[in-house]
Amino acid sequence: MRRDGKIHVTVWNEYVSDRENPAAAAAYPEGIHGCLAKTLGEEPDFLVRTATLQEAHQGITRELLEGTDVLLWWSHIRQEEVDEKTVDLVEDAVRRGMGLIALHSAHYSKVCRRLLGTPMTLHWREGDREILWKADASHPIAAGVPDQILLPEEEMYGEPFAIPKPDDVVFLGWFAGGEAFRSGVTFHRGYGKIFYFQPGHETRRIYLNFQ
Amino acid sequence: MRRDGKIHVTVWNEYVSDRENPAAAAAYPEGIHGCLAKTLGEEPDFLVRTATLQEAHQGITRELLEGTDVLLWWSHIRQEEVDEKTVDLVEDAVRRGMGLIALHSAHYSKVCRRLLGTPMTLHWREGDREILWKADASHPIAAGVPDQILLPEEEMYGEPFAIPKPDDVVFLGWFAGGEAFRSGVTFHRGYGKIFYFQPGHETRRIYLNFQ
Amino acid sequence: MRRDGKIHVTVWNEYVSDRENPAAAAAYPEGIHGCLAKTLGEEPDFLVRTATLQEAHQGITRELLEGTDVLLWWSHIRQEEVDEKTVDLVEDAVRRGMGLIALHSAHYSKVCRRLLGTPMTLHWREGDREILWKADASHPIAAGVPDQILLPEEEMYGEPFAIPKPDDVVFLGWFAGGEAFRSGVTFHRGYGKIFYFQPGHETRRIYLNFQ
Amino acid sequence: MRRDGKIHVTVWNEYVSDRENPAAAAAYPEGIHGCLAKTLGEEPDFLVRTATLQEAHQGITRELLEGTDVLLWWSHIRQEEVDEKTVDLVEDAVRRGMGLIALHSAHYSKVCRRLLGTPMTLHWREGDREILWKADASHPIAAGVPDQILLPEEEMYGEPFAIPKPDDVVFLGWFAGGEAFRSGVTFHRGYGKIFYFQPGHETRRIYLNFQ
Repeated sequence: MRRDGKIHVTVWNEYVSDRENPAAAAAYPEGIHGCLAKTLGEEPDFLVRTATLQEAHQGITRELLEGTDVLLWWSHIRQEEVDEKTVDLVEDAVRRGMGLIALHSAHYSKVCRRLLGTPMTLHWREGDREILWKADASHPIAAGVPDQILLPEEEMYGEPFAIPKPDDVVFLGWFAGGEAFRSGVTFHRGYGKIFYFQPGHETRRIYLNFQ
Repeated sequence: MRRDGKIHVTVWNEYVSDRENPAAAAAYPEGIHGCLAKTLGEEPDFLVRTATLQEAHQGITRELLEGTDVLLWWSHIRQEEVDEKTVDLVEDAVRRGMGLIALHSAHYSKVCRRLLGTPMTLHWREGDREILWKADASHPIAAGVPDQILLPEEEMYGEPFAIPKPDDVVFLGWFAGGEAFRSGVTFHRGYGKIFYFQPGHETRRIYLNFQ
Repeated sequence: MRRDGKIHVTVWNEYVSDRENPAAAAAYPEGIHGCLAKTLGEEPDFLVRTATLQEAHQGITRELLEGTDVLLWWSHIRQEEVDEKTVDLVEDAVRRGMGLIALHSAHYSKVCRRLLGTPMTLHWREGDREILWKADASHPIAAGVPDQILLPEEEMYGEPFAIPKPDDVVFLGWFAGGEAFRSGVTFHRGYGKIFYFQPGHETRRIYLNFQ
Repeated sequence: MRRDGKIHVTVWNEYVSDRENPAAAAAYPEGIHGCLAKTLGEEPDFLVRTATLQEAHQGITRELLEGTDVLLWWSHIRQEEVDEKTVDLVEDAVRRGMGLIALHSAHYSKVCRRLLGTPMTLHWREGDREILWKADASHPIAAGVPDQILLPEEEMYGEPFAIPKPDDVVFLGWFAGGEAFRSGVTFHRGYGKIFYFQPGHETRRIYLNFQ
């Protein structure tokens, strides 16, 4: 445990669409990282920091990761621009025990492809209605989450989702167009725990549904 | 392995609706067990038998189970009429290593409630369209199964599904009314393996979709 | 979480040898339950109670279990005298989410045989030296536990240990006579978690090694 | 399944000690790969090939791996000389579904460190007596294996073994010097399955104990 008794959370964001795409910038004027950090920062047990790809070293240093218990990572249109060295640092931290929460299109980030080792592909379609169902009510991640959450506008992500055998399937996504999806799944890699969570398209203020 | 080198399969059916309900009897003139036995019997590696609740000892004896490697069980409206002694025999056989495939409303059978120990409740609604999605493509149960199977008329089964933590979530069900469901899940109990598979409403000739 | 914010622990003890067998009574003048309750009671987050087989209702009532988050159970020479009704209550509580820690010869208790469904047999020999090795250092149960603990006099428990596939193997036991054993193993049953922990012969003051 | 209906096995050996160290060369005049290939080749369902580090491309090409269902890998004193490109090929094949059996000191190979992501360190001491215990009798890997196998002279490998959470602990090793070890453990990585098996010191004709 940290000397301050707190869980150190770092929200790492690609921060491109939410600056350059007017719809995304309107949805997240403070950036996706800013929105998440604000919500998470209300927890008295969390010490929350943010990092973005535009910062020095793409926002990620060994020192930062050593001071991080859980890293959240949102990425989408700059996947290939993340340096191998940055991926190395994150991969190494997870393997040594850091928690990783990969959000939405971060499923296809170099970090996730490296750690999980499968193609990580899925089917997708912009613009659909999602209902997120809590599947594993006894899982700690699901504690206090309602049975269903309506996301009136979300991007569709569908099976086959080319992930390895997950430890747990915590949430399912239902999409009006006919798809069901493993929307919340957990893995162990090295000593670290990984949670992938599907909701979070940049132009819908999705994360406010979870506040 | 059996002396004959075959996997001994017993299809055990409640056999009430498919005799008494005209729609079910029309869908399964040979009974659900007859339909399943016919399909499974085409596999050269399987030796297939059937049993129904109307037979002596409710169709289940210790001798039958000792000669059974995998038991399929379909039940619905006579759940409470299965004798505790019959449940004892099946529970004991699973715990000693027999495989169990529980079909459709057998989730709520005494056998499943006894073995899995949670309420086994779910939400349901008659008459819906289902798309069954293969979620875990690398699972042996999913080998050769298409990515999606359309079931034009199926009963809706929805989360929260009060099952224990499953070993694997192999299939997801999508229902037109807005629900997603863990439609194929596996468990270990004692030395035995259990697979629950949701499709199979009695008045829709669902199992023909899998032939 | 309980209204008082504490984890409610009940230490349930058969309490026969540690009353009747002089060596055991000398090792545990306050009973095994008394020794464990004293140690656990030093944790500010725990509210600890005890129960013994000699008490009314064999020490176990629905009310007690509803007020219990984690039940410890030590049993040995009165396994068969535990009433089925008592076993029913404990089984039901575990399946609804209570944690169970089964100690030493409680592996063969009716409670464990009922919940785990395998013979639960093992090989044993009185009087051996054990070294308990921490196998899964990243498991929460192993947090803060030294790599090895010497138990100068302990009963040997050896493989084959007829348990079902465990979720995790947290500790290994090494015995001077030539045996290795899965000395700390976890399971889920229903919504409850189970931990079996091998050390704890009644005539050796084993549990003081863990204080 | 392969067109020939067989499981294609490749035994890959570092092949240094068993050429250069007289004791190892005497134990394995045909090389460790030769010994294993001979034994495995007696199975009618297996097509067995061998490869060694001395061959072109260190014995490993994409073509070979595409024709391999299960790769066995024995390595010890040339761990650091395996090219990153060779490791890349093996890692990629495992992640796409090839089975990997890592033998003895291959726990510390680049291949295992890369795939498992933990330090993979352990304690060791040359010259000890081992008893290998079958821990998980219901695991397919343990089918037909005796409860215990005496290895009169084996190198001691002891906990803490810095591996990630394994899927299953199939075998335990007991060493006369006081150690217990997780001697047979399984993992999934990507779509591939990995089995680590501890016995196999080069100067003891260990693998003949398994013929």
